Amino acid sequence: MILPFEQHEDDALLDVVLISRARLARNISGEPFVNRANREEQIRIRDGIASALRGLPELGLHWFDPETAPSAEGQVLLERHLISPKFLEPGPHRLAGYREDARLSVMINEEDHLRIQGYGLAGGLSLAWANAKGCERLLDEHLNFAFNEQLGYLTACPTNVGTGIRLSLMLHLPGISLIGGMDRMQHAADDLNLEMRGTSGEGSEAIGHLHQISNRRTLGVDEEDLLHFLEHDFLSRVVREERRARDTLLSTRREFLDDRVQRALAMLRHARLLGEREALDLLSELRLGIAAGLLTGVPLQTAGQLMQRVRSGHLTRATGCTEEEPLRIQRADLVRRELGGDSPPSEST
Amino acid sequence: MILPFEQHEDDALLDVVLISRARLARNISGEPFVNRANREEQIRIRDGIASALRGLPELGLHWFDPETAPSAEGQVLLERHLISPKFLEPGPHRLAGYREDARLSVMINEEDHLRIQGYGLAGGLSLAWANAKGCERLLDEHLNFAFNEQLGYLTACPTNVGTGIRLSLMLHLPGISLIGGMDRMQHAADDLNLEMRGTSGEGSEAIGHLHQISNRRTLGVDEEDLLHFLEHDFLSRVVREERRARDTLLSTRREFLDDRVQRALAMLRHARLLGEREALDLLSELRLGIAAGLLTGVPLQTAGQLMQRVRSGHLTRATGCTEEEPLRIQRADLVRRELGGDSPPSEST
Repeated sequence: MILPFEQHEDDALLDVVLISRARLARNISGEPFVNRANREEQIRIRDGIASALRGLPELGLHWFDPETAPSAEGQVLLERHLISPKFLEPGPHRLAGYREDARLSVMINEEDHLRIQGYGLAGGLSLAWANAKGCERLLDEHLNFAFNEQLGYLTACPTNVGTGIRLSLMLHLPGISLIGGMDRMQHAADDLNLEMRGTSGEGSEAIGHLHQISNRRTLGVDEEDLLHFLEHDFLSRVVREERRARDTLLSTRREFLDDRVQRALAMLRHARLLGEREALDLLSELRLGIAAGLLTGVPLQTAGQLMQRVRSGHLTRATGCTEEEPLRIQRADLVRRELGGDSPPSEST
Repeated sequence: MILPFEQHEDDALLDVVLISRARLARNISGEPFVNRANREEQIRIRDGIASALRGLPELGLHWFDPETAPSAEGQVLLERHLISPKFLEPGPHRLAGYREDARLSVMINEEDHLRIQGYGLAGGLSLAWANAKGCERLLDEHLNFAFNEQLGYLTACPTNVGTGIRLSLMLHLPGISLIGGMDRMQHAADDLNLEMRGTSGEGSEAIGHLHQISNRRTLGVDEEDLLHFLEHDFLSRVVREERRARDTLLSTRREFLDDRVQRALAMLRHARLLGEREALDLLSELRLGIAAGLLTGVPLQTAGQLMQRVRSGHLTRATGCTEEEPLRIQRADLVRRELGGDSPPSEST
């Protein structure tokens, strides 16, 4: 089986979808779950899985050990959504592997022994799924995953039992939000047994109008059905609603929308100090402006990439700065440079 | 006596002082105070004073009757500080006269029968005083002002009895404010028997870091001493403190200051909708940036003039708009045009 890492992606949904992800939770048969494993068992589990993964060079994984790597590196992987916040918490002996092109990552000893995450970009949920599933099948020949005929795959948390699959979409929904439609959206998601969360996972805030939507049920669902439902029925409906909301704003509140968008671009091009949260919110408005056709000259991809590059971990890695104040200066400099704003004060005076 | 309307003004204090004003309160002997006068008496007082003023064409007054003039006109005069908010309230029969160059105004039947206001710009308190006093002396030959040997000039409110003089300065104090020095400033003013108020008079907020400072005592003070004290001792001290505060910000928090100033200019150049309050606050930051040498290419006078032109009355007179939403568009268009921002969306698309 060939993993479709390099497959070209359709970017028709790029105005709404930022990331598609498919996650599989697996545990090693005969070993205690992570939260019950002692030090020795944790290490044995970790090394066993890592060894199987290392035997699959076609996965192209880089390794990240949270105990020995610099903390900025973990932050970068977190900001790329390749690892979870929980993975960085102090805890058992862990290890992560990831492809530099962000099409695949694995976390060992997070909540489960193994979490496999496949990724696609805009609307690439099938691709994300193919990447995760492909990796799981390759591993299945070397590892013995805990499986029960009645329940399916066994997981540390009962909510993941069964398929152990979680498909999620990171959506940019400023239109629905600005016309006040997020409550309705939330109810619709509840009715469909989908979970809506903020940018950084459970309980987090929706910064920059970014929302993560994922399936809640894993038991008794058919993987292909779930994929089809999320990618075709649900996503196409949300994309339609978001685009309609933007059109409504454009036709009925054009000045309001244009004002927000022009202000956002002006702030990004001229601010000398930018906090992470503010930068993400402004870039979100910028993204909306580009997608709505109010701004030309800035590609949608640039705005999307900047939404990662302005994050503290990425910025620390790029600049070496770790202090908040210099990071705010560096963030403003980066954004100004990328968006064609005026030069920093030290050059202009 | 020749009124010094045309006198050239020193603009050395333009970075801190916006308006200097000298006000004299006078009442007609033998007539009841305004708040006790009936309709007939109010009209008699008004017409008597107006007749005396009309006999002095050298004053160059235009007339404003709040009962018959369009309301936008009153708003414009208020925004030019030529009349008071109280003057526009429903009340007795009133009349105002003003010079188009804003060096002199008179209000009939405001709180007192007559209030004469002379104006200078930056640091022109002597000029303001000369204008007001000159007008009063000319009128003194035609009107009989209520005067008591013990108390001095009699006024409707006891706080104005004596000289009936109030000298006031409109100061731009963003530096002192940003380094957290306004409380100290307020205490110093209290100790010196000076009153600090917001932009639009008593009890009003200090929008755009603008503060009105005036004498509290009018009884038993010598006019020339008061003038000297305010103009030389007090003002020079405040100007020194404000400039020192700006220098401190420049040397210790340059990025912070530069960020505020660049953001303000960017907002002014790119916003499509601007409320009055926001525009004034942004122009205040712009003014600070120009005075501190962080922005070149925009003259201090332009920022100062815009602080009047963005106000709703001025904008209504200039555009014919009276509704809030179109005014916000017009305000943003005006500012963008004057500050060299990008063109309005209707032209750019």
